[in-house]
Amino acid sequence: MEIGSGPSLRHHPQPSSQIHKVERPPKQNVLTEFQTVIKETFFHDEPLRAFRGKRSHTKFYLVLQAIFPILEWAGSYNLQKFRGDLIAGLTIASLCVPQDIAYARLANLEPQYGLYSSFVPPLIYAFMGSSRDIAIGPVAVVSLLIGTMAQNEIDPKKNALAYRRLVFTATFFAGVTQFALGLFRLGFLIDFLSHAAIVGFMAGAAITIGLQQLKGLLGITNFTKKTDIISAMHSVFGTVHHGWNWQTIVIGLSFLAFLLLTKYIAKKYPKLFWVSAIAPLTSVIVATFCVYITRADKEGVAIVNRIKRGINPSSAHEIYWTGDLFLKGFKIGVVAGLIALTEAIAIARTFAAVKDYNVDGNKEMVAMGTMNIVGSMTSCYIATGSFSRSAVNFMAGCNTAVANIVMSCVVLLTLELITPLFEYTPNAVLASIIIAAVFPLVDIPAAILLWKIDKFDFLACVGAFFGVVFKSVEIGLLIAVAISFAKILLQVTRPRTAVLGRLPGTLVYRNVEQYPNATTVSGIMIIRVDSAIYFSNSNYIRERILRWLSNEEEDLKINSQPRIKFLIIEMSPVTDIDTSGIHSFEELHKTLQNRDVMDFYKFHILYVRKLALVYTHCIFFINTEYSS
Amino acid sequence: MEIGSGPSLRHHPQPSSQIHKVERPPKQNVLTEFQTVIKETFFHDEPLRAFRGKRSHTKFYLVLQAIFPILEWAGSYNLQKFRGDLIAGLTIASLCVPQDIAYARLANLEPQYGLYSSFVPPLIYAFMGSSRDIAIGPVAVVSLLIGTMAQNEIDPKKNALAYRRLVFTATFFAGVTQFALGLFRLGFLIDFLSHAAIVGFMAGAAITIGLQQLKGLLGITNFTKKTDIISAMHSVFGTVHHGWNWQTIVIGLSFLAFLLLTKYIAKKYPKLFWVSAIAPLTSVIVATFCVYITRADKEGVAIVNRIKRGINPSSAHEIYWTGDLFLKGFKIGVVAGLIALTEAIAIARTFAAVKDYNVDGNKEMVAMGTMNIVGSMTSCYIATGSFSRSAVNFMAGCNTAVANIVMSCVVLLTLELITPLFEYTPNAVLASIIIAAVFPLVDIPAAILLWKIDKFDFLACVGAFFGVVFKSVEIGLLIAVAISFAKILLQVTRPRTAVLGRLPGTLVYRNVEQYPNATTVSGIMIIRVDSAIYFSNSNYIRERILRWLSNEEEDLKINSQPRIKFLIIEMSPVTDIDTSGIHSFEELHKTLQNRDVMDFYKFHILYVRKLALVYTHCIFFINTEYSS
Repeated sequence: MEIGSGPSLRHHPQPSSQIHKVERPPKQNVLTEFQTVIKETFFHDEPLRAFRGKRSHTKFYLVLQAIFPILEWAGSYNLQKFRGDLIAGLTIASLCVPQDIAYARLANLEPQYGLYSSFVPPLIYAFMGSSRDIAIGPVAVVSLLIGTMAQNEIDPKKNALAYRRLVFTATFFAGVTQFALGLFRLGFLIDFLSHAAIVGFMAGAAITIGLQQLKGLLGITNFTKKTDIISAMHSVFGTVHHGWNWQTIVIGLSFLAFLLLTKYIAKKYPKLFWVSAIAPLTSVIVATFCVYITRADKEGVAIVNRIKRGINPSSAHEIYWTGDLFLKGFKIGVVAGLIALTEAIAIARTFAAVKDYNVDGNKEMVAMGTMNIVGSMTSCYIATGSFSRSAVNFMAGCNTAVANIVMSCVVLLTLELITPLFEYTPNAVLASIIIAAVFPLVDIPAAILLWKIDKFDFLACVGAFFGVVFKSVEIGLLIAVAISFAKILLQVTRPRTAVLGRLPGTLVYRNVEQYPNATTVSGIMIIRVDSAIYFSNSNYIRERILRWLSNEEEDLKINSQPRIKFLIIEMSPVTDIDTSGIHSFEELHKTLQNRDVMDFYKFHILYVRKLALVYTHCIFFINTEYSS
Repeated sequence: MEIGSGPSLRHHPQPSSQIHKVERPPKQNVLTEFQTVIKETFFHDEPLRAFRGKRSHTKFYLVLQAIFPILEWAGSYNLQKFRGDLIAGLTIASLCVPQDIAYARLANLEPQYGLYSSFVPPLIYAFMGSSRDIAIGPVAVVSLLIGTMAQNEIDPKKNALAYRRLVFTATFFAGVTQFALGLFRLGFLIDFLSHAAIVGFMAGAAITIGLQQLKGLLGITNFTKKTDIISAMHSVFGTVHHGWNWQTIVIGLSFLAFLLLTKYIAKKYPKLFWVSAIAPLTSVIVATFCVYITRADKEGVAIVNRIKRGINPSSAHEIYWTGDLFLKGFKIGVVAGLIALTEAIAIARTFAAVKDYNVDGNKEMVAMGTMNIVGSMTSCYIATGSFSRSAVNFMAGCNTAVANIVMSCVVLLTLELITPLFEYTPNAVLASIIIAAVFPLVDIPAAILLWKIDKFDFLACVGAFFGVVFKSVEIGLLIAVAISFAKILLQVTRPRTAVLGRLPGTLVYRNVEQYPNATTVSGIMIIRVDSAIYFSNSNYIRERILRWLSNEEEDLKINSQPRIKFLIIEMSPVTDIDTSGIHSFEELHKTLQNRDVMDFYKFHILYVRKLALVYTHCIFFINTEYSS
């Protein structure tokens, strides 16, 4: 563990002896040890640090601030900041209104419920959330997820009220789940869904959503309810001669082309990001106007029809509190709530890192949970952070969560005043808006990077993708979680071990399989264990070490070279060992000693650098140093 | 990674630059990488190594040998070896006959089923198993487990046939589970039950079994069927005035004292181990004789009554193949089979390490599975390795599995000839045999060691113990597995990080919290990450590093010392990083850069020794070196 410059090392007469003669660290109290573990697991961010040594009324104010981060910055808020927030808020509002109407269709709800969900939740988030850039509202993937899961329970067309009540129940429990995770500081659980699995899941969901939009884009009236690619393709090509509507196709494709063009422009010239931000609203206005004057709806072009005017009605009485649907709502809510949370936290973290401010994951979860619980009582379905709208918000120069309040106000005005204007909006333009919105979720460069860096990650990604595309959203999710867990278990159970050799002309020892020019010394074998040793891998490590030895000896015998007399186990990556590990090494030691006694081979377990093992006092030394 | 002696290090002009200039290892093929992972996960013991380059009829013989390890040593078997095996076999037979009769009662079966299970399974194991010291037969914990689980489904008194059929079904599926685990090389799954959890579970099971024996020992007729300590105590003290039988108590306690005394002698003078080995049979003979001549059974002393004479009848037709009881049998079988396997593998490994021979876990599982599948069709219930009998077998000087064959023959003779002699055996003496047998399972020194080495392991142990004692065997098992998994997840999610300081007068850098005399250099902070970085901990590591920095800076500000300008992250224990980890470090880098740009603090990420990060080429370097 030398961290030294050249000259100082030269003054260092006997490095090896000095390195080994490190005194033992002081013994830790048991209570302190437990406290440390609990603290690092649940309170590693030291949430109470700010309270230390403060007076009680200051403490009260700090608690209020902790619950409502708006109090932290409201005092220093000024007109200049508001200018940025106003512009950003208006921009994301113009993006969210058409998206809300479109996404509500994904969730099999009437259009106004999408708008409702962009009114109440962002307001609550603005007071309780700590991210400055996130834009709150319904998002495509969660809308699809809740739509397909709820649809499996109740048919939304035949029994619209019961279906809606189930969605509100799910929203309520999504909120409760999020709130509970934050409150009990279990936020780290969402880390178990790996980045790779999310990339695959999102890409699969995007393809699935895109396929579903072919219904609106091609004007097909009789479309499958299943979400897999085969059913969707069957619906599309089975209706090619009598189900497609050419007027719809013209509208849909031309606006899709327009939206993709604006996206391309925004990508090429980042300053023109507003072009793609206002493109959806422009499309809706133009398309609605065209349909209105040509009355294309009489030619078979499906339109939105009347959207209910007015702000969110109460829905607290519509939540199921008992019975079978209560349980189903609970299940859907937990799954959808976790996915929504994963997305929101990823967004919040990304922008917080760019602007260098702190986002407390657990606090965010409490905020998300509260906004969805309140949302479920005011006719909203699950809202979360939208990546596309958050990016636009960031680029439009938002400064605080006031941008969400501005957006919320615009949605309020929309609900109160202009919903009747959407009556003639063709579904085809909404479909093209959704397709353009989910398009970037298919992140091929990310998948290529996964392939390059870690093949197992790539497998998780592809597994999740195919699960979603060929079976269903839930199966894809299940595959993603299962592969993520399998990866953890595999890594824990099968750590790497390597035989080391010395690189010519250096003192550096490396894996001989990876550095074929590394040389080993006759009669000595060096094996490196690349992981902490726990009950789940201790047997494997012991057997693997013995296997390395036996194989080497067989090879030596064939070449009639001298036997291995010294086994050096390089344990510097071994940062911890538990009782099973010690047990296993005692067995290894016994086996090696036995071979010695039988005069079969002579083994000595030496130790290299600061760590090595087998003798009990060394094991205790390691334990004493690293125990937490 | 210098592994060098003093002098050679002195000839080494610029160690730091040389260490960094290590060439990249050759790129690996994708297919090779996948092959390596699959091989290390499932075939790390290279089961086909022996077949390499052999002729085809040699290969056929090797396959036969792999399935029947008896062929490996049968050729060189001689009379001298047989002498050892004969003595050992007779000794364990004298121990197993009374234990079998007693354990069958734990499983709520008639006594002959215990004897049956000591006849067929050991014979099969002798041909297929690779452990030379294990003694096969029914064991206390598994008997209790199958007894309580099956009793929850069917009342063994009211419906003895259906109960027995359920037990055979469970035995069949226990065998299938064991066989399948071995065949598909999933043996590592049993490693997930940690040593600590097993210590607690076994101790709890021993207490539970002991409490159940109070029924036989005190002659209580109306005893609870529940296994928890409170119900058992209620049964014991609720019947103190009218339910106890003094003759039974006299017999029970005197033989218990005798058995414990012999155990004490055997422990003190290991050469006299045979005293405790034959004590149970002696007790049975003496007690039976006493009861027979005094006719104490007429005074209320419960006796075994007639044991059915003759060898195992077929029971293949009694296994449930359909219906509800088939599923229940399957469930019980999987649980009991795994527990039986865990015990047997632990025993086989222990003695193999002592005598230095190889036990192949997966092959053992296939052997265990076969013997239980065949056993379920020949009226046996689950057999496995018994720790106490295996220890006696080892001490009596067994050489091969022939000791099991000898034992099996003695059991055969017992079944054919002398079962009628057990008619007057008092239950009290069987109870005292069980108590004496399970007594050593309460391994208090092991628990103390757990406490000393790893507090979390101790918690798992205590959790499993109290679960078994206060609730039920299944709950205890569930707690043990849950805590084991929680430990893995905790270790994966919350790896250690430490701030390092230099020990005075050395070049050694250590955790400043553990070595308070370690000194840090003003303006430089060194943080060590003690684990591979994966998706499950990448966010935590990033946040923790930033937290170390922020805390340090606050302290520096208070003491008005210079700010930290350099952050050194010591990554030598980081043996692997996945895409989420890289993502996380890119975010960390961005945050740190940002602080620099804001001229708030000046950070530089330097790298120390061979590993360090954040810059993409370093990340790829790490990946290239360590990817498997």
